[in-house]
Amino acid sequence: MNRLKAIIESNDTGLGRVFDFGLQALILLSLVTFSLETLPDLSDAVRRWLYYAEVATVAIFTVEYILRFVVADKKSAFVFSFFGIVDLAAILPFYVASGIDLRSIRAVRLLRLLRAFKLVRYSKAVSRIHRALLIAREELILFGFVSLMLLYFAAVGIYYFENEAQPDSFSSVFTSFWWAVCTLTTVGYGDVYPITTGGRVFTFIVLMIGLGLVSVPAGLMASALSKARELDE
Amino acid sequence: MNRLKAIIESNDTGLGRVFDFGLQALILLSLVTFSLETLPDLSDAVRRWLYYAEVATVAIFTVEYILRFVVADKKSAFVFSFFGIVDLAAILPFYVASGIDLRSIRAVRLLRLLRAFKLVRYSKAVSRIHRALLIAREELILFGFVSLMLLYFAAVGIYYFENEAQPDSFSSVFTSFWWAVCTLTTVGYGDVYPITTGGRVFTFIVLMIGLGLVSVPAGLMASALSKARELDE
Amino acid sequence: MNRLKAIIESNDTGLGRVFDFGLQALILLSLVTFSLETLPDLSDAVRRWLYYAEVATVAIFTVEYILRFVVADKKSAFVFSFFGIVDLAAILPFYVASGIDLRSIRAVRLLRLLRAFKLVRYSKAVSRIHRALLIAREELILFGFVSLMLLYFAAVGIYYFENEAQPDSFSSVFTSFWWAVCTLTTVGYGDVYPITTGGRVFTFIVLMIGLGLVSVPAGLMASALSKARELDE
Amino acid sequence: MNRLKAIIESNDTGLGRVFDFGLQALILLSLVTFSLETLPDLSDAVRRWLYYAEVATVAIFTVEYILRFVVADKKSAFVFSFFGIVDLAAILPFYVASGIDLRSIRAVRLLRLLRAFKLVRYSKAVSRIHRALLIAREELILFGFVSLMLLYFAAVGIYYFENEAQPDSFSSVFTSFWWAVCTLTTVGYGDVYPITTGGRVFTFIVLMIGLGLVSVPAGLMASALSKARELDE
Repeated sequence: MNRLKAIIESNDTGLGRVFDFGLQALILLSLVTFSLETLPDLSDAVRRWLYYAEVATVAIFTVEYILRFVVADKKSAFVFSFFGIVDLAAILPFYVASGIDLRSIRAVRLLRLLRAFKLVRYSKAVSRIHRALLIAREELILFGFVSLMLLYFAAVGIYYFENEAQPDSFSSVFTSFWWAVCTLTTVGYGDVYPITTGGRVFTFIVLMIGLGLVSVPAGLMASALSKARELDE
Repeated sequence: MNRLKAIIESNDTGLGRVFDFGLQALILLSLVTFSLETLPDLSDAVRRWLYYAEVATVAIFTVEYILRFVVADKKSAFVFSFFGIVDLAAILPFYVASGIDLRSIRAVRLLRLLRAFKLVRYSKAVSRIHRALLIAREELILFGFVSLMLLYFAAVGIYYFENEAQPDSFSSVFTSFWWAVCTLTTVGYGDVYPITTGGRVFTFIVLMIGLGLVSVPAGLMASALSKARELDE
Repeated sequence: MNRLKAIIESNDTGLGRVFDFGLQALILLSLVTFSLETLPDLSDAVRRWLYYAEVATVAIFTVEYILRFVVADKKSAFVFSFFGIVDLAAILPFYVASGIDLRSIRAVRLLRLLRAFKLVRYSKAVSRIHRALLIAREELILFGFVSLMLLYFAAVGIYYFENEAQPDSFSSVFTSFWWAVCTLTTVGYGDVYPITTGGRVFTFIVLMIGLGLVSVPAGLMASALSKARELDE
Repeated sequence: MNRLKAIIESNDTGLGRVFDFGLQALILLSLVTFSLETLPDLSDAVRRWLYYAEVATVAIFTVEYILRFVVADKKSAFVFSFFGIVDLAAILPFYVASGIDLRSIRAVRLLRLLRAFKLVRYSKAVSRIHRALLIAREELILFGFVSLMLLYFAAVGIYYFENEAQPDSFSSVFTSFWWAVCTLTTVGYGDVYPITTGGRVFTFIVLMIGLGLVSVPAGLMASALSKARELDE
């Protein structure tokens, strides 16, 4: 029993490493088959094989879940832990027959890969990121809130400038908000853009204010992280 | 009277918290109804209900404004404070009958939400941001000014390269300036872009110079903020 | 003579400030008239007025240039200084009759506005920026060079992936280079983009490598600037 | 022999500098001719001249490779060094007759230009960059991994929102992944974008999370670099 526990929960032993590596390969494989299933015009034969692969994957994941449950010291702690919930969510949609499409939940299997970061040095990096978030929390919340306000103001402003000229693209504050999101994040798909002079001048002003606003948090987080690393040393 | 003042102006007491929370919920609600009003093809019934909601909102905001005025120690200081003006601007458009469309002013209600940041720790964050702006002021102004100059030069340059090939898109320095804004902020809607070889080479050079220029201020602000936090400790 | 020199070269006296402010207003005005001239469909009357404004501006700038020359202690030092050359370039195109279109040179008048930053505190900021460039010089050159190499590799790579599928958009390495510039700077006009699976996967890989590369220099510059400020204190 | 070695391997002597500079000019020239070759509609005469230039370039590079091999102290160390492999890859495609198109390998000649950074101060900068990568390694890997996960989740999410409305643009998780790459890197070509309300709200949320994620590594790298410079002093 103790040996089984060592194999499953840690990767110090050779078998433990094989167990971990094998499962991670299987997770990746199951994500690939999930993605393949969404391809249109698949032949029935391929669909059947993908279904068999899914059945096999769920079977192995179920065995793994039961094993993890058996070897866990505190059963309920495992079931309600982050990985316990993720592990269950990765297999449950297969067993539950329901009207709504639950297949997309299978994408949570991706989260299972996070187990690969249980190594000590990544735990340290995660705790540094956590500390950096604490250091810069107030500023991040403030900048986030002011960014949201700017998005809303930009949406209202462009609505009044462009609504008359482009009643389809800027039909309401909601569609204008979509423009604001595309513009202030600098994605700029080009599906909606101002054509009136007023709207363009307004866009210019909003961008001058907004660019700084949107990119400061990332720089803030970066300098908080280097601060957290200094405290770590 | 003192109890009323405590409820309205602070959120230490239970009733004070209810008062603040209720008002903020109402502000959010009024912004939603304002946004809904801009939707095209609303039925008359919905329009009527939105109008009733607006009347009710303005009524409550008016009562709140009068209460805040009554409990204020210095009446004129309240009236001309930031929040005093914002509170008034949030209700005035409803009462003033005028030819021009004042409905958009209702968006200033968003600013009323800033009261949520009166907590001590956010005041500290705001003062840190203020100090960071002071620390990096000269550099921010310089970079901002040089960025504006680069925008203008880019506009003039692309005008001479593209005007002949695309007389509609680059009809004058003003429309070229719109291109410069879209390009140097990397929004890139795709409504105007160079097609001549000269214009593309020019764009390449301008982007090489401009990208650094436009993103340095954000990094500058971030490092000034971490500096301000160190001074704070 | 000394009084004239004080008025022209410094802004300590009241008249000196009027002189500086007036000239800067005139520079801005001349940039506006220059931009207006590029508008298509101007009436002859407007064109004439713009021409008169230009004649007046050049006349004043010429007088100013002569005055600056006269009060300068070392004549040749003034003529070959940065501002001496800019001042001359701002008026010369008007006097030189030539076959090629020199009007665009009038845009250099923008550079004359830089005189506004002769104040002590901006001189300090400029010297800090200069020092930051020296601090981060090697890294900036390395990142710039590697960025250029990545741009070229991206152009060659996408050419081999997309040339067959889109012979018009990716007709040669040169047009592919234009795609690489638009993509790695994240401008993304949408005039050229990969459509083959290979080209898209290649774009994904190039962007993963390139995004860091392109934005590191700006962050580098920002931290070098805060370093330079520390040395300054 | 020793003099030849000095000329080829260092640039302390005059002839050594001429040798290095001449080769680098030739590398640039060969990249230009390679790019020119990809131009469509070249006349036969031009094609022939480009071929002659290529033959001459390869001849000189071959002589250079042999010389470097001869003067190298340890022959095998040179052959399997980074520059040894690059030098060989730059000439080999010419000699090897094969069915597949090896011309694109000629682009590796670009890498030969890296020899220009053998100077001491650039070696220092490279070692600083190396140290910065070591300092920020765990965070960079974590952010990179989480970014990849976000890209996949975004692809799965948008697939479920948009697949029905736009079966062509979002035909599978793979094409949705292309959208995720274009959006989260803020390139935004505009070839695929959400049109449903659900898809747009989802895009908004993904961008709010993703923008920070994608730009933090660059800031991280920048502050790690300034840290590495401090350790250097």
